[in-house]
Amino acid sequence: MKYPVFLLLFVLFVFQPKSTAQDLKVNMDRLHSSLMTLSTYGKNEKGGSDRVAYSSHDIEARSFIKDLMIKAGMEVRVDFAGNIIGKRPGRDRDKAPIAFGSHIDEVPNGGDYDGPVGTLSAIEVVQVLAENRLYTDHPLEVIVFANEEGGVIGSRALVGELSQEALQVVSNAGVTQAEGIKLLGGNPERIPEIKRNPGDIAAFLELHIEQGGNLYNEKLNIGVVEGIVAIEWWEISFKGKANHAGTTPMNMRKDPMLPAAELILEVNRIVNSFEGRQVGTVGKIQAFPGAGNVIPGEVKLNLEIRDLSSEKIWTIYKEIESKAKELAEKSGTQLDIEHIEVASKPALADPMIREVIKNQADILGLSAKSLPSGAGHDAQEMARIAPMGMIFIPSKDGISHSPEEFSSKEDIANGANVLLGTILSLDRLLK
Amino acid sequence: MKYPVFLLLFVLFVFQPKSTAQDLKVNMDRLHSSLMTLSTYGKNEKGGSDRVAYSSHDIEARSFIKDLMIKAGMEVRVDFAGNIIGKRPGRDRDKAPIAFGSHIDEVPNGGDYDGPVGTLSAIEVVQVLAENRLYTDHPLEVIVFANEEGGVIGSRALVGELSQEALQVVSNAGVTQAEGIKLLGGNPERIPEIKRNPGDIAAFLELHIEQGGNLYNEKLNIGVVEGIVAIEWWEISFKGKANHAGTTPMNMRKDPMLPAAELILEVNRIVNSFEGRQVGTVGKIQAFPGAGNVIPGEVKLNLEIRDLSSEKIWTIYKEIESKAKELAEKSGTQLDIEHIEVASKPALADPMIREVIKNQADILGLSAKSLPSGAGHDAQEMARIAPMGMIFIPSKDGISHSPEEFSSKEDIANGANVLLGTILSLDRLLK
Repeated sequence: MKYPVFLLLFVLFVFQPKSTAQDLKVNMDRLHSSLMTLSTYGKNEKGGSDRVAYSSHDIEARSFIKDLMIKAGMEVRVDFAGNIIGKRPGRDRDKAPIAFGSHIDEVPNGGDYDGPVGTLSAIEVVQVLAENRLYTDHPLEVIVFANEEGGVIGSRALVGELSQEALQVVSNAGVTQAEGIKLLGGNPERIPEIKRNPGDIAAFLELHIEQGGNLYNEKLNIGVVEGIVAIEWWEISFKGKANHAGTTPMNMRKDPMLPAAELILEVNRIVNSFEGRQVGTVGKIQAFPGAGNVIPGEVKLNLEIRDLSSEKIWTIYKEIESKAKELAEKSGTQLDIEHIEVASKPALADPMIREVIKNQADILGLSAKSLPSGAGHDAQEMARIAPMGMIFIPSKDGISHSPEEFSSKEDIANGANVLLGTILSLDRLLK
Repeated sequence: MKYPVFLLLFVLFVFQPKSTAQDLKVNMDRLHSSLMTLSTYGKNEKGGSDRVAYSSHDIEARSFIKDLMIKAGMEVRVDFAGNIIGKRPGRDRDKAPIAFGSHIDEVPNGGDYDGPVGTLSAIEVVQVLAENRLYTDHPLEVIVFANEEGGVIGSRALVGELSQEALQVVSNAGVTQAEGIKLLGGNPERIPEIKRNPGDIAAFLELHIEQGGNLYNEKLNIGVVEGIVAIEWWEISFKGKANHAGTTPMNMRKDPMLPAAELILEVNRIVNSFEGRQVGTVGKIQAFPGAGNVIPGEVKLNLEIRDLSSEKIWTIYKEIESKAKELAEKSGTQLDIEHIEVASKPALADPMIREVIKNQADILGLSAKSLPSGAGHDAQEMARIAPMGMIFIPSKDGISHSPEEFSSKEDIANGANVLLGTILSLDRLLK
């Protein structure tokens, strides 16, 4: 999908809808009320949400969601992977549907916004269209993906990327993915049948909370997602010589803790030395044997780098690797680096859809900026088969996966209005 | 016990024994043969020793030891703490005994020298005296301490420092200390009765492998131990803000991993910046939650400093603490430091005994140097009630607590001869 951007902008200006996208607005109070109702499913004593995928909370909440979808006039079904799919016909039966949605499952003791904001806004968009008896040319599809937090299970199934092995993994609810999918009304054995191919969906859109502090700190309304970053992991080990911390003089030690500590500082320095929004993290470190009175024989640490460009990640990594080799040599330790396959390639948002989102924010008088998504989303799987766009709204203090997760009802309504406008605009722009 | 050192040296020169200490030598081959026999008790497939205290290997080996002691003419008994005590009368029944010995228990998968060298040399010394029908003025006592590796249990019991709580701690053999002591023939309830008081023992001597690389690397025969170092532990915590490693930009992080890494390097720099033989170690580090994709909320590390001078330890610590505060401030993290009570005060060797040991090495034509013991020993407990001296022999490559632990039969015989000469010399010098 390549479009000359200036031509697009021109088209967007000239063909601004007069009586639809600009006038239609979501019902902020209704949307917020749905969100508050959904949040009661699985609320725990600590104020967090225990609505993990496949739990009774998840299953009960899905009934509530299905009812909302039916009320909005959609034809609702559950696919073999447990995804809830609501269809609204378009005026042109030959067109592929425009799909949008998110998830409602949460991490254990999670929040009320990561997933529900996108899901309920998607339903609200269809509700508004129904109330206004407005039909798009493209059919619309609201998708509520199964078990996003446990490994984007539903979206992987939908694009044909869910392996038999992945189905045997035990989920946070204590059942395997296969068992869990059955609890949702799916049929794990028939998952291959639901696979969508390129062309089957005209575009996929997801509204989501940012889960970072960029919009909130800069007091911006809308994030136009450039794409979902690639993630690369390495396990780095320095091996020295374990020895008695009392009897081994300082100058006779081969202590791997020292190059490991120096590398942590170098990771930070090197990642910051590049222009851009890449991030690099050492989140895990372990010394072996790991006793206060033993000089460690080995120190292992985990390096993670994320960026929209895989090439940039590897450029940064190469610099870190070269520094690690230098530190190992200097300290007389042995360096081993293992690249961990986390299979997370970058998923770029479609440039045309990004332009449309930005334009809708402008029309609505909302401030916006482009930014990458540092976290994974169902949209990243959907990007394998369809032009993809994501809309972010601010997360208070950038907090997520926590009971403290919060986005204001105004910010949520802003996001939903941008989603609505984007769908209507894409309906005209896409084949 | 204060003696003007020069006067002592003069005395030692003038009254050098003509026909006893200089001529008597241990039987190197017999000593080595005992050591090799002892090493068969608890030998595992990896070549290591599993003769942990209270195990069947320990109990069987103790029978072998008791037999050796009886053969050397000693009157042998097991005290209420499970220590094996062999007595040899002196010519003067009013004098307090000169005591010497070590232990035969090992760490799991340990070596054959840490403990056995001192124990079998002590028995060999008495054997040589017996063969030569030579009686000292002071009675002699060979003590084979119970469970040294599990917390110097036997020696603590002997000096009245073993608490009821310590007796309930489960040992490496899987039984509590109290149960283990019973297996050795002791009676934990009556341990208070065996307490020795200052004056009860004229002097305590222990021969031991160095467990460090000073003597081996400098090709020296004998270490004259200055004392057993004090050990201080601190648990240092930096608290930042746990956050998503993908969505949190580098400049919005409060990552406690960074000050922790910098502190590790500062500990090394600061400990090395002081003159002397102090050691400082960070052997343990942990990040919380400790996942590759989460910026840690907290990083904890363990700091250990050892030196003969508690004052010096605290001077070094204060400098580290001040640097830690600076790093916490710079990184916006919260610093918490907890001093862990490991109750290990320095135990200084008696200056007169150190002189005698050095002099005996000289007489035997052995090279020697003074050095601290970085590891703990039964001698450190015995120093609470008696003038104490320790003799070190070289450990190959400084390795200990490992199947690779090794000292040559010549080095062992050298140490045993210094022990023999020191006992005979002290017999004349002490009241």
